[in-house]
Amino acid sequence: MKDKKGDILRAALVCLGEGQNPNEIKIAEIARRAGVGKGTVYEYFTSKQELFAESVLCFISECLAKMQKAGGSGSFRERFFAVLKVLSGCLDNCRPLFYTVFLHQQFCSPEAEAAQRMLSRQPEVERELLLILDELLRQAEAEGLFPRREEQDSLFAFSCVVGALCFAGCSPTKQDRDLLFEKCYQTFLKLNQ
Amino acid sequence: MKDKKGDILRAALVCLGEGQNPNEIKIAEIARRAGVGKGTVYEYFTSKQELFAESVLCFISECLAKMQKAGGSGSFRERFFAVLKVLSGCLDNCRPLFYTVFLHQQFCSPEAEAAQRMLSRQPEVERELLLILDELLRQAEAEGLFPRREEQDSLFAFSCVVGALCFAGCSPTKQDRDLLFEKCYQTFLKLNQ
Repeated sequence: MKDKKGDILRAALVCLGEGQNPNEIKIAEIARRAGVGKGTVYEYFTSKQELFAESVLCFISECLAKMQKAGGSGSFRERFFAVLKVLSGCLDNCRPLFYTVFLHQQFCSPEAEAAQRMLSRQPEVERELLLILDELLRQAEAEGLFPRREEQDSLFAFSCVVGALCFAGCSPTKQDRDLLFEKCYQTFLKLNQ
Repeated sequence: MKDKKGDILRAALVCLGEGQNPNEIKIAEIARRAGVGKGTVYEYFTSKQELFAESVLCFISECLAKMQKAGGSGSFRERFFAVLKVLSGCLDNCRPLFYTVFLHQQFCSPEAEAAQRMLSRQPEVERELLLILDELLRQAEAEGLFPRREEQDSLFAFSCVVGALCFAGCSPTKQDRDLLFEKCYQTFLKLNQ
């Protein structure tokens, strides 16, 4: 049973990731791609909006899980680079998905069901991100690189680095990836010192 | 004649700014909004992609001009806050446009015409931004806040700050704006010291 739900979530994500307009994606198409009947979709999700919200949240969770795994061993420097690499890969591969999520009314207008569902899970996502950061920072502390700081300060420093990564990654003349990661690393160090 | 071109650029920007999918925006609609015939659009632009690229570049130039004006007088701190305020206003008012430019295939995939056109003008945009930064940094130096650094380092520090500003602005629970600007200011100081 659980696999069917996962298959449906993944099929919805594939449709969204192709940049299809969420209004035009049919439950029947998602069912077909998941290899289940249309009725089965409604056994797991009450509406298309619920399905979309859950599939995007599922994608975010998977990205965070990959980041956590990547940041789970090695020196602070190795962990930090590994986390950036995962993040940068997620961004590069999922631009159409992000486009849909950021731009489409179903995800953006505060009254839309999908938006409300995603919003209600935001604290959970932030908590997962903080856990990843926490592990990184504990490693940095163990290596004597910098002392622990307020959680929100570390989150802000991290968002600076991710922001710079996004800008550089968005630019069609991709800077040399390694150099970019190095700059991000130095920046994160400096902001935490 | 020149006004017609401006009207067409502005009409295209309005369509993009509404978050319409660039694939689905019709030249006929842009022409209608600009109050010109469809043929007139093609007198100024060879393709929809050229029109899109030019209209986004025109918007960026206008933002940069506003930033330059804002950063032209006062102490370093005052200038920096003024520039952030302009930037943040541009972001808030034009979120759908930014998302489209950062995430939509027509602007992101290296083989797309609009992407290539924007790429070819990137050095020009970077130069304009560096002029604004240069003036800010000269003021900081005059006040003895920090010494001059490599242009590219200052640009990277600035992109970190802008990245953090974007993320914080995206979150539905907007942080207090003044506090956010203060954090950005402290971050920029630290990265330049």
